Amino acid sequence: METCSKERLEEKIKTFSQFGATGNGGITRLSLSPAALEARAEFCRRCKALGMDIVTDDLANIYATKPGTENLPRIAVGSHMDSVIHGGNYDGILGVLTALEVVETLSRNNIPTRHPITVVVWTNEEGARFPPALMCSGIIAGKFSKNAMFAVTDNQGVSFGEALKASGYQGDEANRFNAKDYMANLELHIEQGPVLEDAKKTIGVVEGVVGMVNYAIRTKGQSNHAGTTPMQKRQDALRAASQLICELYVKLGAIAPDLVFTFGHIECRPNVHTVIPSDVDFSLDARHREPAVIKKVVEVIKALPKEMMKCQVSYKENWARDTVPFKPEFVDFVEKNAKAFGYSWQRIYSGPGHDAQYVQGVTPTAMIFVPSVDGKSHCEEEMAPLDACWKGCNVLLQTLLNIDSNY
Amino acid sequence: METCSKERLEEKIKTFSQFGATGNGGITRLSLSPAALEARAEFCRRCKALGMDIVTDDLANIYATKPGTENLPRIAVGSHMDSVIHGGNYDGILGVLTALEVVETLSRNNIPTRHPITVVVWTNEEGARFPPALMCSGIIAGKFSKNAMFAVTDNQGVSFGEALKASGYQGDEANRFNAKDYMANLELHIEQGPVLEDAKKTIGVVEGVVGMVNYAIRTKGQSNHAGTTPMQKRQDALRAASQLICELYVKLGAIAPDLVFTFGHIECRPNVHTVIPSDVDFSLDARHREPAVIKKVVEVIKALPKEMMKCQVSYKENWARDTVPFKPEFVDFVEKNAKAFGYSWQRIYSGPGHDAQYVQGVTPTAMIFVPSVDGKSHCEEEMAPLDACWKGCNVLLQTLLNIDSNY
Repeated sequence: METCSKERLEEKIKTFSQFGATGNGGITRLSLSPAALEARAEFCRRCKALGMDIVTDDLANIYATKPGTENLPRIAVGSHMDSVIHGGNYDGILGVLTALEVVETLSRNNIPTRHPITVVVWTNEEGARFPPALMCSGIIAGKFSKNAMFAVTDNQGVSFGEALKASGYQGDEANRFNAKDYMANLELHIEQGPVLEDAKKTIGVVEGVVGMVNYAIRTKGQSNHAGTTPMQKRQDALRAASQLICELYVKLGAIAPDLVFTFGHIECRPNVHTVIPSDVDFSLDARHREPAVIKKVVEVIKALPKEMMKCQVSYKENWARDTVPFKPEFVDFVEKNAKAFGYSWQRIYSGPGHDAQYVQGVTPTAMIFVPSVDGKSHCEEEMAPLDACWKGCNVLLQTLLNIDSNY
Repeated sequence: METCSKERLEEKIKTFSQFGATGNGGITRLSLSPAALEARAEFCRRCKALGMDIVTDDLANIYATKPGTENLPRIAVGSHMDSVIHGGNYDGILGVLTALEVVETLSRNNIPTRHPITVVVWTNEEGARFPPALMCSGIIAGKFSKNAMFAVTDNQGVSFGEALKASGYQGDEANRFNAKDYMANLELHIEQGPVLEDAKKTIGVVEGVVGMVNYAIRTKGQSNHAGTTPMQKRQDALRAASQLICELYVKLGAIAPDLVFTFGHIECRPNVHTVIPSDVDFSLDARHREPAVIKKVVEVIKALPKEMMKCQVSYKENWARDTVPFKPEFVDFVEKNAKAFGYSWQRIYSGPGHDAQYVQGVTPTAMIFVPSVDGKSHCEEEMAPLDACWKGCNVLLQTLLNIDSNY
């Protein structure tokens, strides 16, 4: 079986880790920022050197294509190059660099493909500068309106539309990813969690992206002086929130053993040690691959008491997404190849969202995960072992070749 | 019985509410700020007009003295003129203005006193610019070291020592309040709580300042991705903190019905809705007049479990103070005078701290409270009804005359 070059992949990771380097081992490479434009320029330079044809669409998504031997739709492979603030050198960029290494391997080893191979770089996956995340795959999948997204501004008041124009990467809407011209899409990504590492597995065979709901829950009481207000007169919003969190832990915990739910954010007002809290907001994020389980979470939230410890309780849904299963035949290819290479593997669902989940709505898709050291992601310590990156890259190459020969 | 002038008192309150006015009905008059210096200048101008002798000490505390008829130690009466950010027109300043009105009444009505009467303005009671609160009475009472306090800086990097020098109000250390030259101290203050208003009482006969403890409690877990970390692997610091708060509510609530305790401040890290909290800090403030009750609070904290929901639990004491009972004979004068004027009254303990609690350690002291509308304080809506202020002023005048004639 063909394999990619570990040395070339290592060089790619090292080179791209310079664009937006923070000096602490990580990067800040916000979408369409100078650092991101440097990374784009280097990506295009390398694609041209491989003889690829490069176009961009109106969202500055980049499509670099190596021709196929037959008149067939394309196989897409790629990810994103933007990062969060103080992010790492793997989230997103590894999917672009492994795609590039796959094409470089095909070129250098003179392996022809029937379908054209297009390395895709998705603009603004993180949404760290212009929210929401997955913006441009979302526009293409019809999840977001182009006009609304173009009007989103960063914290300097620059709109996404203005940043696109200024980038030099805005092309024709006709170049957008679409169901007619693309017959498959593959994305390799770090897991961003501890599951593979804990299980001592190298390859995550990603079956899909789990469904989720995200709520903002509020308790509203009355602020008053801590030294003078008798206990029985208090409407303590933090007391009510603490009680709610404890009760929700019990209720949600009973729904399904593999449901994950998190109260990650809490804000208390006025948040002064001598004042009884008047308002507390906290977040609930819950994820599971089965819609029936998520439905039970929604039922628990809808059944929240209107009042808790003399405080009003209210909630609003911030967002929700259904579980997105990937193309089963492609997922099976990934598993088969991991086995054939003799790599340890396990089937896994993605908790985080990825452009692939929106692209799956347009064209059959699959993802490959490699382990995150200590499960860390969205931080400067974010790391995937080079050997695992290379093995993932080999599975990516082989899966692409399977799709190319079977469809 | 002699009474003060309601009109003059109203004029004083209105005039001083201009110094540091925010335009929203309140004031920001941080210690030794330009607004505070304006208030000091107007105070001194008025004292001079009454023929009082003014000195300041090394802490810029102001002492304005009306002579007595005999060679006796002084009776002090006063409070502070600094405020918190977006504070109100009563906390502190009302105690200075009623003291001034008492002296003005004595002067205008030609009422001699045996003892000299000294109106005292304490520097930096709030500690809002230079922490801690009660700084200068605390230095005089030996609670804080002068060197350490002079080195405290505001958020512009200006030290308290530098601000004192620049103020023009720094005088001789020999002028400090002391046990030899002062035989009594009185302070009128708004209650800063709802007790008097709820009980429909005008005069609070303050028996003392309640003892308190203040703790920072920490739960320490491990941050991880909300979408991928299985529930049984989590060390969720917010779950542990919520559980602790609920349990402490039960345990502390069982100690005594009139113990007040507050978890007013909570900080969660990294505080992101998709990340399991790694650390949570929350505050506990508990107050009661009986040392035995506070001791039980301390026992509950000392018995905190080392671990809660797989997170480490730790705590540190931020500060503690013992209950400070005021001079019983002076407290009885306050009660007797409220009765004699026909005002409604009740005995009360102060929850908030006051300069009077430190001065009591040097010289016998008493306080008089007037009601806070809606129990509000440290906010722009802070208000005490004029009629109650005037009645409180009359009780202050009469109590001062009682002390003057009885000692």
